[in-house]
Amino acid sequence: MLNLTELEQRALDTPINLADGHPRQELTDSQLKVVYRFPELFETAQVESFRELERSAQTEFLHALGQRTAPVADERVFSVYSSSVATMVVGNVLADLGHEVALVHPTFDNLHDILVRKVRVRPLSEADCATADLSGAVAAGATCVFVTTPNNPTGWFLDRDALARLAAACAHHGLLLCLDVSFRGFDTRAQFDNYEVLEAAGVSYVVIEDTGKLWPVSELKLGFLAVSADLRHAVDHVLSEVLLTVSPFVLRLVELLALDAVDGGFERLRGLVAENRRLVTTALHSLDGIDLVDPDARVSVCRIGVGSAAEAERVRAGLVDRAVHVLPCDQFHWARPGEGAGQLRLALARDRDLLADGLRRLAEVWRAVPTGST
Amino acid sequence: MLNLTELEQRALDTPINLADGHPRQELTDSQLKVVYRFPELFETAQVESFRELERSAQTEFLHALGQRTAPVADERVFSVYSSSVATMVVGNVLADLGHEVALVHPTFDNLHDILVRKVRVRPLSEADCATADLSGAVAAGATCVFVTTPNNPTGWFLDRDALARLAAACAHHGLLLCLDVSFRGFDTRAQFDNYEVLEAAGVSYVVIEDTGKLWPVSELKLGFLAVSADLRHAVDHVLSEVLLTVSPFVLRLVELLALDAVDGGFERLRGLVAENRRLVTTALHSLDGIDLVDPDARVSVCRIGVGSAAEAERVRAGLVDRAVHVLPCDQFHWARPGEGAGQLRLALARDRDLLADGLRRLAEVWRAVPTGST
Repeated sequence: MLNLTELEQRALDTPINLADGHPRQELTDSQLKVVYRFPELFETAQVESFRELERSAQTEFLHALGQRTAPVADERVFSVYSSSVATMVVGNVLADLGHEVALVHPTFDNLHDILVRKVRVRPLSEADCATADLSGAVAAGATCVFVTTPNNPTGWFLDRDALARLAAACAHHGLLLCLDVSFRGFDTRAQFDNYEVLEAAGVSYVVIEDTGKLWPVSELKLGFLAVSADLRHAVDHVLSEVLLTVSPFVLRLVELLALDAVDGGFERLRGLVAENRRLVTTALHSLDGIDLVDPDARVSVCRIGVGSAAEAERVRAGLVDRAVHVLPCDQFHWARPGEGAGQLRLALARDRDLLADGLRRLAEVWRAVPTGST
Repeated sequence: MLNLTELEQRALDTPINLADGHPRQELTDSQLKVVYRFPELFETAQVESFRELERSAQTEFLHALGQRTAPVADERVFSVYSSSVATMVVGNVLADLGHEVALVHPTFDNLHDILVRKVRVRPLSEADCATADLSGAVAAGATCVFVTTPNNPTGWFLDRDALARLAAACAHHGLLLCLDVSFRGFDTRAQFDNYEVLEAAGVSYVVIEDTGKLWPVSELKLGFLAVSADLRHAVDHVLSEVLLTVSPFVLRLVELLALDAVDGGFERLRGLVAENRRLVTTALHSLDGIDLVDPDARVSVCRIGVGSAAEAERVRAGLVDRAVHVLPCDQFHWARPGEGAGQLRLALARDRDLLADGLRRLAEVWRAVPTGST
């Protein structure tokens, strides 16, 4: 079975790519103005102190997402090329410290694939994360809980109370808590100050922040690794195997895009995703037997349920024939792929017309063989 | 003991940073023109096919370095965020295939540190690489030979005959041959078509190419992984854990900088490094007891020998007091650090005046306590 990224790579140059969760919508006017300023960004980045550039970019980005107490000033936020490289670094740190991981299930498969190279990984349900029921994980030997919040593909997330409960439970059991918050920008409900909650709980933590899902700027992006004080040295050291610094230019870019985000950019982005989600809902209304799996989700992807594994495969193949690429959901359920069968994931960070075209073709495919007739 | 990158990080915002081997010289006029075109590069990268962009960038870069038969058209060259991330991917592939590695000694310590997380690693001398004497490595159980050529910090390199010999020996013993050629751009003697030699030998190979040491463009860079046909699938699959694609914008940038390099850019770069090496040579002439360790090297770093470990530490501390940062050489000798004691590494991809200032301060430090008086 191909992994999700391999499937996404096949969709790269296709006419209607609804496969990957990367932002591919048009730039807004104010984002375009930032692109026009690229030479100026480059020149200012060349002359400024790197530490100052890094601190400014981290501060503006994290503040734009409500993370006012992220430990930037304490030099506990590290910049990385991408969130996946950050995850590789976390995997190495977990291995060095002898951890075993309880990883949220389902989630994007590369989290599992990267971590399992280093440490033992077991599934942990969203429900158990939400209720902070770690009894099973602890009994099975887990020493680390790893949660994607908001989650991909479900849109499920930990609200303030749930995070506080989970952090307290981790602290109680002496577990390390890792959060991947790459999709937080899409959901204001997840934008309470995570760091305030984590520090108050006194838990050991690693948070993977990501600029890469938000802005369609040609994959010019960063991951940030924010950690509790006890992990500062270990993460710093392991990261130094991988990089000297990220790009000063990209730091400046992230800073300006974060400022633009606060100045209406995030509102426009969330508006686009919400409108696209409504477009999917409306399209599915007229199609018997397909439904939107997570109507309450706000992330830039959505799942649709088509009934059975066979139907999902038929629809996906029919869409490929019509130049539309979406993802199957089996691989998100990395421990039990069967649980994702019968579902497909559609990307929503796309221009409205492209998505509408994809949905028209989905309707064609769906109606080509009415449910139950096969 | 801190690793080399940690030492380099301390030097980042200091007045005279001669520590890291990243390019920090001023942009040439024609490179600056490319920076002014950033908005245009961005826009063309947005509309072009990703595969075409990637193929063009890889082709122009590899051709600029004499690698005419690199397997771009055969889809055996993969783009990565950086050469270190490429090395992490290679480490995972080596682990999956059950390899044990004979790694050139000395070399930059992060190669060892990344690989040893995954596989067993033993030292292999430059002399044994040059004569293709793999008897010791094979007897010790190595199944893979990993060579940095040109090497960092020594400047030693495999010429065509030596690479042919080594590739033949690896093929004969059934060993995988990995080359890190990040510094090839500085030495025309290493710019014969490596791929022609490797394919002719019929050896399994991985070559790590790197755009990151050449052009001072704010760490906007790529690594490329070029592999023999038998490794194509394994590398493709492992890489898909880490990234969907690199930045189309950075691909365009690399393509334009490669075209500029052919059009005189590489000649200017090599001219700068040669002039800076002469500057070091001249400065050392007047200092009794210090010498240039590798007078024949052409890479963008050079080693100076100061006699003893104690002298090296005294000089490095004295330089730090005068705001000059260089690297000790102990860590390059990752298996036997003592062999690098008494040597320091200076970066040469710097503006002439900065280096000259650093060398003046080196003379002050050196003369402060004449050799033998301590």
